[in-house]
Amino acid sequence: MELPGYKTFDKSDYAHILSLIPDPARLLFGEGISEDYSHDELGGTFAFPDIVVRVKDAGEVSDVLRYANERRLPVTIRGAGTGLVGAAVPVCGGILLDTTLMNRILELDSENLTVTAEPGVLLMDLAQYVSERGFLYPPDPGEKTATIGGNIATNAGGMRAVKYGVTRDYVRALDVVLADGTMMELGGKVVKNSSGYALKDLIVGSEGTLAVITKATLRLVPLPAKTISLLAPFPTLSQAIGAVPLIVRSKAAPTAVEFLQREVILDAENYLGSAFPDKSSDSYLLLRFDGETAEEVERAYGVAAEICLEQGAADALIMDTEERSEGVWKARGAFLEAIKASTTDMDEADVVVPRSKVGEMVEFTHRLREAQNIRIKSFGHAGDGNLHAYVLKDEIDDDEWGRRMKLAMDAIYLKAAQLGGQVSGEHGVGYVKRQYLKESLPPAALALMRGIKAVFDPKNILNPGKVADL
Amino acid sequence: MELPGYKTFDKSDYAHILSLIPDPARLLFGEGISEDYSHDELGGTFAFPDIVVRVKDAGEVSDVLRYANERRLPVTIRGAGTGLVGAAVPVCGGILLDTTLMNRILELDSENLTVTAEPGVLLMDLAQYVSERGFLYPPDPGEKTATIGGNIATNAGGMRAVKYGVTRDYVRALDVVLADGTMMELGGKVVKNSSGYALKDLIVGSEGTLAVITKATLRLVPLPAKTISLLAPFPTLSQAIGAVPLIVRSKAAPTAVEFLQREVILDAENYLGSAFPDKSSDSYLLLRFDGETAEEVERAYGVAAEICLEQGAADALIMDTEERSEGVWKARGAFLEAIKASTTDMDEADVVVPRSKVGEMVEFTHRLREAQNIRIKSFGHAGDGNLHAYVLKDEIDDDEWGRRMKLAMDAIYLKAAQLGGQVSGEHGVGYVKRQYLKESLPPAALALMRGIKAVFDPKNILNPGKVADL
Repeated sequence: MELPGYKTFDKSDYAHILSLIPDPARLLFGEGISEDYSHDELGGTFAFPDIVVRVKDAGEVSDVLRYANERRLPVTIRGAGTGLVGAAVPVCGGILLDTTLMNRILELDSENLTVTAEPGVLLMDLAQYVSERGFLYPPDPGEKTATIGGNIATNAGGMRAVKYGVTRDYVRALDVVLADGTMMELGGKVVKNSSGYALKDLIVGSEGTLAVITKATLRLVPLPAKTISLLAPFPTLSQAIGAVPLIVRSKAAPTAVEFLQREVILDAENYLGSAFPDKSSDSYLLLRFDGETAEEVERAYGVAAEICLEQGAADALIMDTEERSEGVWKARGAFLEAIKASTTDMDEADVVVPRSKVGEMVEFTHRLREAQNIRIKSFGHAGDGNLHAYVLKDEIDDDEWGRRMKLAMDAIYLKAAQLGGQVSGEHGVGYVKRQYLKESLPPAALALMRGIKAVFDPKNILNPGKVADL
Repeated sequence: MELPGYKTFDKSDYAHILSLIPDPARLLFGEGISEDYSHDELGGTFAFPDIVVRVKDAGEVSDVLRYANERRLPVTIRGAGTGLVGAAVPVCGGILLDTTLMNRILELDSENLTVTAEPGVLLMDLAQYVSERGFLYPPDPGEKTATIGGNIATNAGGMRAVKYGVTRDYVRALDVVLADGTMMELGGKVVKNSSGYALKDLIVGSEGTLAVITKATLRLVPLPAKTISLLAPFPTLSQAIGAVPLIVRSKAAPTAVEFLQREVILDAENYLGSAFPDKSSDSYLLLRFDGETAEEVERAYGVAAEICLEQGAADALIMDTEERSEGVWKARGAFLEAIKASTTDMDEADVVVPRSKVGEMVEFTHRLREAQNIRIKSFGHAGDGNLHAYVLKDEIDDDEWGRRMKLAMDAIYLKAAQLGGQVSGEHGVGYVKRQYLKESLPPAALALMRGIKAVFDPKNILNPGKVADL
């Protein structure tokens, strides 16, 4: 992608950045840049940066940004590269800031129930660290090898959003570096805050376009003593989905309500090489409950199991051993990779609709397969209306795939909008979904977003060509 | 307050606005503007608008704003006027939009767990409406006669923030009118959203400076079946406060953790004319727990009671009847009014500090009384670090009160900042606390806030002279 007015990166820029970073091994240049840096996990977006800077602290980030801002060099931020919409791909070239070496967990504050970490810490490492110390970091995106910085940048949601909310709800404070190199702390270890505009909340979900996150203080909760899962096979998808609002409004308070379909379960079995405990039905609800006592959790899943059976579930299978439960959630966690392995290429829609409309949305994608003659698989978070629908290339030739995929995507986003939904529940907009964002928002909202971007980053050096930049 | 460049409101403006509003009785002008409209609940800020427009729908708001923006007339938004920092006082004159006639509850969506209301609905009416239908709107600010619009504008916190979070966490969608009259919907009935910048979250807490809220869709939770309160008298404040982090990190999961001191309890008794169940001690913790079963709630308060007793509490009084519990919470709810009734005038600090620093903050205000020779009373949300400290005028003459009050406030805000705190936990910045906001924020953060304001409201007509506008 070519945007006007950027400086072309040259040897003098390399020399200057070399002078800012004490260890030359942390600068990758030219042939030294591995192919991994040119794309993310999906996205269909490919572009190489001119240089990769593996930053180690906020001071280095500040130095690099100040220089880039003066010269007007594009800067893209990348964590583990597990994104799905091209947000971390340097589509305008320039500098790629790799934050994965900023991977220290700095503090667990058990009085204020916070953990403070650098952005490159992996979600799975953070989750394990706090869990070993008796705490839970509630956000639970499927991709555990993502970085915390990436989770914050996309306002990642995940499985536990039904009960616990999303990443933004857990960010207490951020250290950030602005486009001009200014270092700033936003928020604090405080539970409430009405002190001026919500800059911290604005940076959460801004996909690297407003500031670089260099430290995050995250809210924790005490680790629940008991967790149990419930798998309910339903004869039809509509029965499964129909049970969801009843469960959510009951007093069962599930932490997760996922819907699974047999075709995706079979993909996961193939991918993992291990059997799923039940394949008798077309559709499943997978629920999880947590609480302090066995009685409390048993009461909750009892309520939910009863609702499922009333709504036509063939069974309500309690996953009451660690082993059974882990097997099922491992399969659920492998869905994206399993679908990916089942085809040659794919693109994804991460629409979110009102909880009461999930069934209609899923059934629409099923009808779309016939109409567009293309395979579409879906799974997602029934409890929070967030559907992941994958359009598969298979053996379709490139041009035809491009055409059919676009028609399918257009139809999915239009349907989501008609149902009162939004373009992205948790994966963000990045590069690939900008047009859909533009179509879904009132022009005045888009103008406000661009205005805000210009306030934070007047020279548009931070992740140009992303989100509202089109 | 005089800010340059505004048009002086004259008869032609009156005539034009009269043409926009079909019912002349909803326009108040000149002598017809009651004194109530010139101030809020506290604040020490007094100013009359040139006209009060009692708007009835978003169309009227849009018409008035479009006109005001063209002519550059200041517009201030007012709900029930229960604010404490002058945010709803029209310090630059001009138009005051009174939203209290926009007071319809429009929809309760039991499948998506949302309630949709106009901004002038009172918190107590909304709470009762959803409660009668089996739901809970968790935010629970002490001032139940505030409007929902005002709660959103200040990101109000309240008693249940320990367990449930603050107002921003419950706003799913907003209909707003921008300064130029553009009507816009932000968010939706969706649990997750990563679709561009968080405009909705930015408008929450912006105190009427970025947009006018004309409709809000709020998240609900199922109404817990059981609620119980616990009152623990402690010999000393430091023992009471010392127990708080232990309770919060335990598995007790209180919905509220308030600290009370005898002197304020006595004020409340005088004000209400009813006796508090215990006055034996200097300091108290008042806790509340909710849950689905008696066992669950009993387990929780058992854990908390044990911690209190271990930390030196003289007793742990279970408020297990509706009557006892209500009496105690009624006293707690009357603290602000009771303190106000005990003196001639007062000002307030609403600082929030890390939960672990509340004790230090309260003890600092006690020492300050001696140092500044002025009465200071405090109460607050120990569980979330939010302290309300009231500096009392009593019989001090005006000049001396001004001097001592400023010295005391300066000292309180400085101390809060030193403890890692913020200027306001839940009451906002408004007019009165702008200087403290300015001193507490990095200049770059203030510049970003002003830049954002200019994007939303380039002519600075919406609530000028507030928040970051100084």
